[in-house]
Amino acid sequence: MTQPARQGFAIFGAGIFATEAYIPAIAALGKAAPPLKAVYSRSFKSAESLSTAAVKALSIPAPDVYHDGENGGGVDAILARQDISSVLLALPIPLQPSMILKALKAGKHVLSEKPVAPDVASGIALIEQYRSEFQGKGLVWRVAENFEVEPGIQEVGRLISDGAIGKVIGFKACVLNYVDKDSKWYKTPWRTVPQYQGGFLLDGGVHTIAVLRVLLPQPITHLSSFASLNKDYLAPHDTIHAIAKASEHYNGTIEMTFAFPTTSKPVSAKDACVVTGTEGYAAISIEGGFVKAVLTTEKKETIVEERMTGVQVEFGSFFDAADGKQGVEPFGSPVGALKDVAFIEAALNSDGALVDLGLLVPGLE
Amino acid sequence: MTQPARQGFAIFGAGIFATEAYIPAIAALGKAAPPLKAVYSRSFKSAESLSTAAVKALSIPAPDVYHDGENGGGVDAILARQDISSVLLALPIPLQPSMILKALKAGKHVLSEKPVAPDVASGIALIEQYRSEFQGKGLVWRVAENFEVEPGIQEVGRLISDGAIGKVIGFKACVLNYVDKDSKWYKTPWRTVPQYQGGFLLDGGVHTIAVLRVLLPQPITHLSSFASLNKDYLAPHDTIHAIAKASEHYNGTIEMTFAFPTTSKPVSAKDACVVTGTEGYAAISIEGGFVKAVLTTEKKETIVEERMTGVQVEFGSFFDAADGKQGVEPFGSPVGALKDVAFIEAALNSDGALVDLGLLVPGLE
Repeated sequence: MTQPARQGFAIFGAGIFATEAYIPAIAALGKAAPPLKAVYSRSFKSAESLSTAAVKALSIPAPDVYHDGENGGGVDAILARQDISSVLLALPIPLQPSMILKALKAGKHVLSEKPVAPDVASGIALIEQYRSEFQGKGLVWRVAENFEVEPGIQEVGRLISDGAIGKVIGFKACVLNYVDKDSKWYKTPWRTVPQYQGGFLLDGGVHTIAVLRVLLPQPITHLSSFASLNKDYLAPHDTIHAIAKASEHYNGTIEMTFAFPTTSKPVSAKDACVVTGTEGYAAISIEGGFVKAVLTTEKKETIVEERMTGVQVEFGSFFDAADGKQGVEPFGSPVGALKDVAFIEAALNSDGALVDLGLLVPGLE
Repeated sequence: MTQPARQGFAIFGAGIFATEAYIPAIAALGKAAPPLKAVYSRSFKSAESLSTAAVKALSIPAPDVYHDGENGGGVDAILARQDISSVLLALPIPLQPSMILKALKAGKHVLSEKPVAPDVASGIALIEQYRSEFQGKGLVWRVAENFEVEPGIQEVGRLISDGAIGKVIGFKACVLNYVDKDSKWYKTPWRTVPQYQGGFLLDGGVHTIAVLRVLLPQPITHLSSFASLNKDYLAPHDTIHAIAKASEHYNGTIEMTFAFPTTSKPVSAKDACVVTGTEGYAAISIEGGFVKAVLTTEKKETIVEERMTGVQVEFGSFFDAADGKQGVEPFGSPVGALKDVAFIEAALNSDGALVDLGLLVPGLE
């Protein structure tokens, strides 16, 4: 008995991340990825450019180009193709939810970029609709949260969970980003004037919360936070100072800014996260394409150093899940990604008051 | 016209800090300090030991020894001496308020160790009584908060206030202390089982808040915090994770623990404080007897490095104030020290709720 010919996939969105992260990840996956058949972007130019980049990096026939211009076919045409069973969505944040539903309705498996949705309410609605209409049909929907699946982060999470630093008693995250008006990210029009809460704090901040989700053995349940805007061009908010707790287990601090004033950083920013336990601590840095961690007790020092390959890992896992393979890691859970959005949304609105995150994301487990 | 002969002073309390910090500070002051005439401790042994240490370090006639044992004279006898015009109080925290009042009633100038009082209520009562009964008589009462007056901290505070990093937009403090049962501090009986809120968080934590008080141009007005106990022997609490804000000016995080699991620390703990501005940041480390700071903008790096001499500075300033000299720095304000206690008390009790510090310390300016 021969396997049916593997179907292909399409990429929606031809921005920086699709070009700079998606194509190399697909190249690295090699035969573990199905064939890239087509790309879609609103503009012909962007879609064409991504297709060309794919040809170069993947040595494949040019993926077909779909766009919203004249004779571009648009979304409906690409979703109508029977040789495409999966789509990767890397569109502007506000456009994602409707496109996720559109792709699912067309019978495609979907991997959609984080955040799962621009806000908690639309995220819950999406998840509920997926569960009631599409999950039963065997359609896979995952959220691409590459920090969640980084091998280095996963490894440190396992070590902590296995007791490498004893029982966890505290944590902190500190992410200081310098974003000037010349930043390639800032220049993306939908990021320059974001039509969603938090600006970069939503777009990039969910990564940090996803990392904590993997590192901490018990989930964050409550927070209190101050949000602020320190660089006008990063409106509506660019900075969060928060405390959070995991029920009665432990507490921590989260400092997250995209308004850091200089390209250089204080030494304290070298630790993106520190998780403290009864026996020691894990200090994790994420920079230069590597996750590096040192787990230190009085008796032992354990080093973790892993090149960042999260996009490749999440793609591989998604394609395996879409193919119905057994034993695939349950990465990219929309509920997990929703919790990351809930943290950011709560942190933007808390204004120093205690927020119970369980009330924001109720009964979705 | 000759100056009247300068009167002497006494030290109350003969613990670790009196021996290891007070005596060297007095030695360093040299002739700027009046003569040390007497020491008092509850036990003869401690008082005698401090007197001996003073003889050795200061090359002076042995200060008279007062204690609560047989023929020890006790507090009343030492306070009755007319050749002693000032007292330095370094007693267990719960004993300080009544001794401050006793010394003031005896007509002595008082420099009392931080915290100003074990809690905000007793601190307010003390300040009010000082103002109504003793201040008008020309008696000086200051609180010894050596971190407040550290030349390095004062210098960084001046630079920030002068705009060296632009307008302040955020801050953080991070103090990770490892205290085991063999610690000389822990072994002080009144610290082993503290009869006051917060344990080391009150005793040592006020230093950190005092540093922020000097570094930040606008005072902290609100906080939200989680307090926890992670090492049973440090009860009642050993850890604070807090966010704080200075009105609408800026926000920050404060992480403070005496339950750190190891003697080694993560690299991020090298910065005891970071103050961030619109143009740059000031990163301050406090260790090995030095305050070191780097103020960094895109154009310039300013280094501050000062040996820690806070005890000497606060003593010199106190003696000058007690002598009625003009132009003495207004160090050691009991209201300032009360604000530090208010921060700790609020952080211990907030449990994630917003606390308005102005309501805790009302109308005392």
